[in-house]
Amino acid sequence: MKKDLDQLMQERGLDGLLVTGPALNNPYMTYFTGLVHVTSGDLIKKRGEPPVLFAHSMEREEAARTGLETRSLTAYRMEQLRQEAGSETGAIALRYRKMLAGLGLTGGRLGLYGLVDAGEAYAVFSELQKQMPDLELVGEPVSPVLLEAMSTKDEQELEQIREMGRTTTEVVAATADFLTGHAVQDDVLVRADGNPLTIGDVKAQINLWLAERGAENPEGTIFAIGRDGAIPHNAGNPDELLRLGRTIVFDIFPRQAGGGYFYDFTRTWCLGYASDEALALYEDVRTVYDTLLKGLRPGARCKDYQTLTCDLFEARGHPTIRENPETEAGYVHGLGHGVGLQVHERPSFRMVGELEDTFRPGMVFTLEPGLYYPDRGLGVRLEDTLAVRPDGSFEVLAEYPYDLVLPMRDSR
Amino acid sequence: MKKDLDQLMQERGLDGLLVTGPALNNPYMTYFTGLVHVTSGDLIKKRGEPPVLFAHSMEREEAARTGLETRSLTAYRMEQLRQEAGSETGAIALRYRKMLAGLGLTGGRLGLYGLVDAGEAYAVFSELQKQMPDLELVGEPVSPVLLEAMSTKDEQELEQIREMGRTTTEVVAATADFLTGHAVQDDVLVRADGNPLTIGDVKAQINLWLAERGAENPEGTIFAIGRDGAIPHNAGNPDELLRLGRTIVFDIFPRQAGGGYFYDFTRTWCLGYASDEALALYEDVRTVYDTLLKGLRPGARCKDYQTLTCDLFEARGHPTIRENPETEAGYVHGLGHGVGLQVHERPSFRMVGELEDTFRPGMVFTLEPGLYYPDRGLGVRLEDTLAVRPDGSFEVLAEYPYDLVLPMRDSR
Repeated sequence: MKKDLDQLMQERGLDGLLVTGPALNNPYMTYFTGLVHVTSGDLIKKRGEPPVLFAHSMEREEAARTGLETRSLTAYRMEQLRQEAGSETGAIALRYRKMLAGLGLTGGRLGLYGLVDAGEAYAVFSELQKQMPDLELVGEPVSPVLLEAMSTKDEQELEQIREMGRTTTEVVAATADFLTGHAVQDDVLVRADGNPLTIGDVKAQINLWLAERGAENPEGTIFAIGRDGAIPHNAGNPDELLRLGRTIVFDIFPRQAGGGYFYDFTRTWCLGYASDEALALYEDVRTVYDTLLKGLRPGARCKDYQTLTCDLFEARGHPTIRENPETEAGYVHGLGHGVGLQVHERPSFRMVGELEDTFRPGMVFTLEPGLYYPDRGLGVRLEDTLAVRPDGSFEVLAEYPYDLVLPMRDSR
Repeated sequence: MKKDLDQLMQERGLDGLLVTGPALNNPYMTYFTGLVHVTSGDLIKKRGEPPVLFAHSMEREEAARTGLETRSLTAYRMEQLRQEAGSETGAIALRYRKMLAGLGLTGGRLGLYGLVDAGEAYAVFSELQKQMPDLELVGEPVSPVLLEAMSTKDEQELEQIREMGRTTTEVVAATADFLTGHAVQDDVLVRADGNPLTIGDVKAQINLWLAERGAENPEGTIFAIGRDGAIPHNAGNPDELLRLGRTIVFDIFPRQAGGGYFYDFTRTWCLGYASDEALALYEDVRTVYDTLLKGLRPGARCKDYQTLTCDLFEARGHPTIRENPETEAGYVHGLGHGVGLQVHERPSFRMVGELEDTFRPGMVFTLEPGLYYPDRGLGVRLEDTLAVRPDGSFEVLAEYPYDLVLPMRDSR
């Protein structure tokens, strides 16, 4: 949580944080500013002190809305700095140097964050490092301290994610209702105008329903049928028709419009009926999912659940990524991930790597076991977003039925 | 244009380009991939050769949809690379080294691009530079070669921006119609339920109308009344009411959903009537705008129009940012900017700095003169998006009336 930040900085030997870029669609900046329309700014936090937001004078009102202490970027005259530094890159670095020095950050270690152009970051911060040899610039690709702070949510953040959960399940329910209300011709859903319904049509509806509720889906929505649903990140072919009996993987991960909190949710549906083969896969996934849910314990290592999932699927005869990291059939997808201002954040469930997260109060994460058989045209995934409560219990943040088969209303 | 890229790389002494990050919401990557759901990848282009997209095997189908040559990122075993490199950062750098070497890029100069975390970019590319001393890693904060290529659009890109222009002006027309259809009580617009209409209500409608048309507004919409409209980047207060006679700055800059092409457009409206003071400011802005439009010439320097705008406004007695870069009254906003996969790109109209763009066929840009007097509660801005045609003529990409006063239908 934000209140842990000074402590976390202390543990990592960081004397300051520098976050750069816009306030919108830039999670580390949004974490401090909230959703305000500051198109470009810099936030500097010295350990033990509140953060300071540098914004252009044109955006001073929006900057003030953050409630943060603000300073003007415009007060640094770029023309002068260009002359002094001899280049644009040098001038930008020099401005940072002056901003940092103004806050007393001339030595120690400074962490760098924010979504910006890779080349610009590399050039400007390499130059700044040359200009400030006593200040060590630190990038943290594995686990930025901000991601660590963000990995537990306070009550206000939890409530926002719960609300996105309500929005998400409302839209999922509307989608189920929309699909099952269609007429069917030769096993294919048809619209009132007689044309077949396409996945593109369904997604357009989903986007509308999200927009009506103040949500957006910046990374799209997965609505993938048959073989496409068996490639975990295949978003679905917009021209594809909706055929009864085929597995549909519907993975929806919207967020509050402008770059706020995400929710992440998946159901697998068969319209009208399911084949025995699909039903068997679904039962395997459902059983594993229920076992995982029942076994969640505060303090346990997240990656142990990834291992357990591999155990459970292998015991049922499915290949897994543990046996073969390159397998494209069986259990080929990670078990889960943290959710917050990013759709993928801490905690990490990866079996290998440097991170070893344990379940702590305030954590918000997904569980999403699945089975994928592209050659058989079958994909099944179930996913909810959960939180660890202050008392160590686990909460599914938005309840929704797990049914595989959605009966068509016409054919009842 | 994309076809100029090898030539531009040659001019800048770049032997390769490396673009990193997701395909969506990442303009430099989207430029090559189009709008596909690849959540994380790397694209490497060697000069004179087509680009190669490295994607995770889970996203191979989406990657294949780009039509680019693709390779598997998953084939590089991270666990092994971690052991070899001794750290996660080192492993990521080592993977780049192997990817680059596989394409024959072991020396020369490599440009870096893509929207990623600043700290990660700094750490990983600093490490890669150490691992590959013969390959100079280049960040281009001022004018990335990709931005230079993107600064002229081919016919297909132009048509997409024109279409976004149609979408934008449709939504603007719907907004005007929506506002003027309201009843008025004590000079304030009221809804059918008797409550006053708020800016929040108007923005919710705008978002819906955009979503219905496959568009999104990732950076929000400026709909700012009175004093708020006199702070150029103030997006407007959602709780504010719509009062007759006050200036409303309506600046809308949506893009194709998922990170496609933008359009950028502003009108200033007074509902019902305008004060003489507002009308006088409007006339000044309109006259300057018409003068600028008439004076556009292919080959001319963009920044000369910025200078001309200052001349024209100063001649009318208004303070400008040329006289005082920190002024908050008068002409305080840049004249324009390129528009494409980013809402602000080349050409640049800045009077100072290293860039000196001239109008060339295929360029798409805004003109947006305005006057801002926060103390008087008055802001006026007019803006269209224009293109330079192959024959050197200039085209407003979506025509829309410039009227200041929108008569209320009730009071006719």
